[in-house]
Amino acid sequence: MRNRLRDTWKAGKAGINAWLSMPNSISAEITARQDFDSITIDLQHGLNDYQAALGMLQALEPGTATPMARVPWLEPGIIMKLLDAGALGIICPMINTPADAQALVRHASYAPRGSRSFGPTRAVMTYGADYASKANDQVITLAMIETVEALGNVAAIVATPALSGVYVGPSDLSLSMGYTPKLDQEEPAVVDAIKTILAAAKKAGVHAGIHCIATDYAKKMIALGFDFVTIGGSDMRIYAAALAERVAQMRS
Amino acid sequence: MRNRLRDTWKAGKAGINAWLSMPNSISAEITARQDFDSITIDLQHGLNDYQAALGMLQALEPGTATPMARVPWLEPGIIMKLLDAGALGIICPMINTPADAQALVRHASYAPRGSRSFGPTRAVMTYGADYASKANDQVITLAMIETVEALGNVAAIVATPALSGVYVGPSDLSLSMGYTPKLDQEEPAVVDAIKTILAAAKKAGVHAGIHCIATDYAKKMIALGFDFVTIGGSDMRIYAAALAERVAQMRS
Amino acid sequence: MRNRLRDTWKAGKAGINAWLSMPNSISAEITARQDFDSITIDLQHGLNDYQAALGMLQALEPGTATPMARVPWLEPGIIMKLLDAGALGIICPMINTPADAQALVRHASYAPRGSRSFGPTRAVMTYGADYASKANDQVITLAMIETVEALGNVAAIVATPALSGVYVGPSDLSLSMGYTPKLDQEEPAVVDAIKTILAAAKKAGVHAGIHCIATDYAKKMIALGFDFVTIGGSDMRIYAAALAERVAQMRS
Amino acid sequence: MRNRLRDTWKAGKAGINAWLSMPNSISAEITARQDFDSITIDLQHGLNDYQAALGMLQALEPGTATPMARVPWLEPGIIMKLLDAGALGIICPMINTPADAQALVRHASYAPRGSRSFGPTRAVMTYGADYASKANDQVITLAMIETVEALGNVAAIVATPALSGVYVGPSDLSLSMGYTPKLDQEEPAVVDAIKTILAAAKKAGVHAGIHCIATDYAKKMIALGFDFVTIGGSDMRIYAAALAERVAQMRS
Amino acid sequence: MRNRLRDTWKAGKAGINAWLSMPNSISAEITARQDFDSITIDLQHGLNDYQAALGMLQALEPGTATPMARVPWLEPGIIMKLLDAGALGIICPMINTPADAQALVRHASYAPRGSRSFGPTRAVMTYGADYASKANDQVITLAMIETVEALGNVAAIVATPALSGVYVGPSDLSLSMGYTPKLDQEEPAVVDAIKTILAAAKKAGVHAGIHCIATDYAKKMIALGFDFVTIGGSDMRIYAAALAERVAQMRS
Amino acid sequence: MRNRLRDTWKAGKAGINAWLSMPNSISAEITARQDFDSITIDLQHGLNDYQAALGMLQALEPGTATPMARVPWLEPGIIMKLLDAGALGIICPMINTPADAQALVRHASYAPRGSRSFGPTRAVMTYGADYASKANDQVITLAMIETVEALGNVAAIVATPALSGVYVGPSDLSLSMGYTPKLDQEEPAVVDAIKTILAAAKKAGVHAGIHCIATDYAKKMIALGFDFVTIGGSDMRIYAAALAERVAQMRS
Repeated sequence: MRNRLRDTWKAGKAGINAWLSMPNSISAEITARQDFDSITIDLQHGLNDYQAALGMLQALEPGTATPMARVPWLEPGIIMKLLDAGALGIICPMINTPADAQALVRHASYAPRGSRSFGPTRAVMTYGADYASKANDQVITLAMIETVEALGNVAAIVATPALSGVYVGPSDLSLSMGYTPKLDQEEPAVVDAIKTILAAAKKAGVHAGIHCIATDYAKKMIALGFDFVTIGGSDMRIYAAALAERVAQMRS
Repeated sequence: MRNRLRDTWKAGKAGINAWLSMPNSISAEITARQDFDSITIDLQHGLNDYQAALGMLQALEPGTATPMARVPWLEPGIIMKLLDAGALGIICPMINTPADAQALVRHASYAPRGSRSFGPTRAVMTYGADYASKANDQVITLAMIETVEALGNVAAIVATPALSGVYVGPSDLSLSMGYTPKLDQEEPAVVDAIKTILAAAKKAGVHAGIHCIATDYAKKMIALGFDFVTIGGSDMRIYAAALAERVAQMRS
Repeated sequence: MRNRLRDTWKAGKAGINAWLSMPNSISAEITARQDFDSITIDLQHGLNDYQAALGMLQALEPGTATPMARVPWLEPGIIMKLLDAGALGIICPMINTPADAQALVRHASYAPRGSRSFGPTRAVMTYGADYASKANDQVITLAMIETVEALGNVAAIVATPALSGVYVGPSDLSLSMGYTPKLDQEEPAVVDAIKTILAAAKKAGVHAGIHCIATDYAKKMIALGFDFVTIGGSDMRIYAAALAERVAQMRS
Repeated sequence: MRNRLRDTWKAGKAGINAWLSMPNSISAEITARQDFDSITIDLQHGLNDYQAALGMLQALEPGTATPMARVPWLEPGIIMKLLDAGALGIICPMINTPADAQALVRHASYAPRGSRSFGPTRAVMTYGADYASKANDQVITLAMIETVEALGNVAAIVATPALSGVYVGPSDLSLSMGYTPKLDQEEPAVVDAIKTILAAAKKAGVHAGIHCIATDYAKKMIALGFDFVTIGGSDMRIYAAALAERVAQMRS
Repeated sequence: MRNRLRDTWKAGKAGINAWLSMPNSISAEITARQDFDSITIDLQHGLNDYQAALGMLQALEPGTATPMARVPWLEPGIIMKLLDAGALGIICPMINTPADAQALVRHASYAPRGSRSFGPTRAVMTYGADYASKANDQVITLAMIETVEALGNVAAIVATPALSGVYVGPSDLSLSMGYTPKLDQEEPAVVDAIKTILAAAKKAGVHAGIHCIATDYAKKMIALGFDFVTIGGSDMRIYAAALAERVAQMRS
Repeated sequence: MRNRLRDTWKAGKAGINAWLSMPNSISAEITARQDFDSITIDLQHGLNDYQAALGMLQALEPGTATPMARVPWLEPGIIMKLLDAGALGIICPMINTPADAQALVRHASYAPRGSRSFGPTRAVMTYGADYASKANDQVITLAMIETVEALGNVAAIVATPALSGVYVGPSDLSLSMGYTPKLDQEEPAVVDAIKTILAAAKKAGVHAGIHCIATDYAKKMIALGFDFVTIGGSDMRIYAAALAERVAQMRS
């Protein structure tokens, strides 16, 4: 059962993640054919819903990256549907308390660890007949730490049994702390908060990821200790930036 | 940042609203090119889901009406997704208590007022780079008052800080009061209840809207004091009625 | 095998036809539940393609109207696909010569009459196992007469063996004759041309239809002798007109 | 108002149910044209969402089977949307307590029995103008009993007023009891649990259904007393099994 | 560049082909995961169009079968679009003359052999950067022989340079010869015609395929000398037959 | 009636064009919000069909660029459908003879100049009630010159009355001339051919465009005299290149 992100982690390296916001199977396939460790379909701020994500999960097949999804909210229905559709990881927004983190793990895990309902309709096609017995070991769960409340609870959150790790959402974290929402933050207070989250994750022995735009910033985050970085912001941002650059060249 | 419904209200006039129940971007564009103050995509009883609504929000661009959405239920995921997709107003069904109304405002507002997660993916495209700083002032939140319980709590509901107003759902209100569910109600008890809601809104200084079919009835409601009326019931009703009228003419 | 339009004709009456331009299965179902003799999905000027038409043909099942399609052009691929999908009639634009009309009949007929390829994938589901043996008798073929060239050839066109009849496209006919393109024409020269087409059809014993907006005009056409009239122009026109009427009432 | 499953039950017979996991209106129509008493569109483990289900509900019109849906989770928004779209029955997963069962009935029932919001947009098209007054008597609610917790509460669950019955999910029940998840179970402890559920339903006078693959197993369940059986597992399983059988014949 | 059907032929064996008529990426993926040598998406009598086929071509990626398409008609636009989308073979209906066959080869071949326009948008993603130089050697072209006219021209058709082979459409061939259209034909005159086609292909050294339902019949055709057989008729037939069998078992 | 590309040309400047190959309304809207003079939806080598293009044409509304389409082939049905849907320009591949060029103009022009059928369903919504009278002056027709045959006929092709100009497809031209298909050509013989085409267009007083990737190359072409350049190759190429660049930065 392929899971390149877990393999990358086992090798002691940081996973490079792509972020899909456009509801489109062609841009998904283009992304799948690049050298990412994982690809996350965003159903929260991305313009995707379940049916779009299903086609995109199929379109990721030619690649080797671990397919993941960010869900719109901590809600069992959509978490389980995405896992059944073949996502091997769930990034869940707004995990503010240990109870939230426990719910995330529970929804994403089969009994006895959790209450995930059984019926891996497409997952069993792509991962094989032994998916049921391996899913709990393979599925990745990342809790987004993106509020002041979560920051206060971070030690307890990272201690959640079977939680794979945390994922920093710098925009929401900034906003919650009273700053302008922004990725690739350099605001000292927010950077300190990010370091606090990283330290808590490291101490608990779980993974720590962060959403970035610039590759330089992402490399800096890896140097800090993060072992999971999204680059480029999203497919939409990457495409828009590349277009704008070309138009500027022509108009200059 | 265009917001024709708020401008209409500022001018002391009632907003005329269209209601989109068909999951179709062409009927949405036709509607956008008519002279409405706002257009609401219905994801509750309308046959729409998020992906249909996204295409319809794009199709509303050529017009000037404020794009809004009625959500299926008081649930943070879909409220935030629709705002990110460009809806500037949320009509939320079944707001029965002040706690419900507060949750609606919270889900639709950025910190510090609320807990809306940051990532206005399409909204920032259509409303500009300063969307983040203006969203809390621009987004409209309308709480549907449509049960006996809500009626009892209406004074407390309209007092919810930052709630834009209320929207009367006459069918559900009728049903909850023991009458046949029906729009354009003339049943005295239901009409009294409608007036009670309107009076509470007026007293609290918030907006009051109501779902109507006949334009005569809608005008009567404006005369009563409502400053937001849906006409025609929905695109489906309007199309079906217009078809039926023509067929009757041919068959007569 | 149901075919209400043929039954209407057998009863010596004129068929009332609806026209679907919106690519949407819900507006199609609404139309199906009205009292039409036939419903035509327009793939030429309508915003439909094959896949939209397929869903719409499914959505017409609850009704009794004969499902038909106007094809984009005289091209065998799409004519055969629509018949396989369950259309029981084909309206073909721009039939200018007897050779065009013969090609239409040939593409829509199984051997020995024509060269329609065999594989009525959905048609056999909806019309039954004997569809193959009955299709040539049931499928309706209407040649659009809408140019000066066609007008000159109309006697020869209506004489095409097995052609069901003709359908007047007043806008294109007007344009071809040098007048402003327009439905519900009152321009004498165009009205004369329409009467010429009707007379030719009557003489040849084939059906004659015309595309109308106003029900009054459609009734006048039936009085003239037409036995097939489209009313309302299209679903899009009907919806737009009904919306505009309501908005005008509110704004007055 | 047609409701073949209720008619079958009234006649003292067991209903045969089809299960649709593929998001496709063509496979839905094929199924509708077979002799089933009911057809369930699965939005939980099936690869369907609301918009796919809407098209499939339209595609079921040519048949006589009662259209039903399994929802992803006990959540009012999707239950009400599916009923509005024309589903006449709701199968709800993971009903573990009497409170869960009461919530299911409440979400699926109009006042005064429940809190279903009024707006049967498509249902009123397909079931007629008196849908509102008949819906509470016609809509079927089946609570899935599929955990050890539910098993312990089964007597109280089946006593829920107006609940139509229970539906056994053997895979989840097996998993919850510590066995390998599996349909067509022969594991004695699971079979005993199934019998316990059936006995409780019988005693309470409500219906009892179970999800099966093999027709032999389904017949055995009917013989045991179940009056509702799904056969074949799902459209996906049936198609895959039929394909595999043919490939094996060719390769042998 | 994978091309399992060509490999099978090189190994002197007959290719087993699946036939996709349902516009659905899930049934396509299920089929891809079975042991077929090739899979053909049918855009003629199948209910597919280009956009459906594109998603299905993506869904075939997990498998090893050569992806092919049957086009609606001998028309350059759709042939080239399907090749650009990743189809490695084209089955073209109604090839009645050597000129037809030459046009098929020309549309499917890059210069200097043909006039295929260059822009293998998706093909280059799935087959690699050297697709352009290898396409002419890899793309399979099969001319359908399915009329009396084609039968008369078969020797000249099979002599078309670079044509991969012929594919017998027994239904159309039967119809054209004056018999009931039918697959798995046993009608002596049609069987003789089929043998004539096979003999012509063998003599010319090109491949010969035939559309079958029963695996026994397909094996008989291989024994006769065919090296390409479709089994099951189509995904729709296979699913419908498997459903009907199960329903019959339950109803007996 | 807005037509930025014609305005740019009137101002004596070269139009900068974007190329949309992904069937997606979100990437289309992102493109619309950049500073292009025109945007072309590619239905030939792009992965688009009519229905995708329709949604994309709607998504281009917020911008100012002239919406255009490249059709799959010189075929009247699709040319007219795209114009009706709101495209204001048609780029047609493989115009090899003056007769081809005349057919292109004819299909894209209303009588008396051409034979375009009347029914500008969406165009009249976006361009206004006077669309019919202005369309022939506004619609842009660009003939692709991309074969040796076309090169030989270029003087006659550019002399076609009412043809707006030519568009060079360097890949096909290279292939036809015996070179490796490639954009941004530096091969002297191909560059000479490109200059020949440009000179012929200049002499005839029609516009000349060329498909480019690099902005440097596009600027060079403008310097040569081209007044219409596509940059970036396509949305797919731009996105893939931008992704690859970021991955390379991370992996280095």
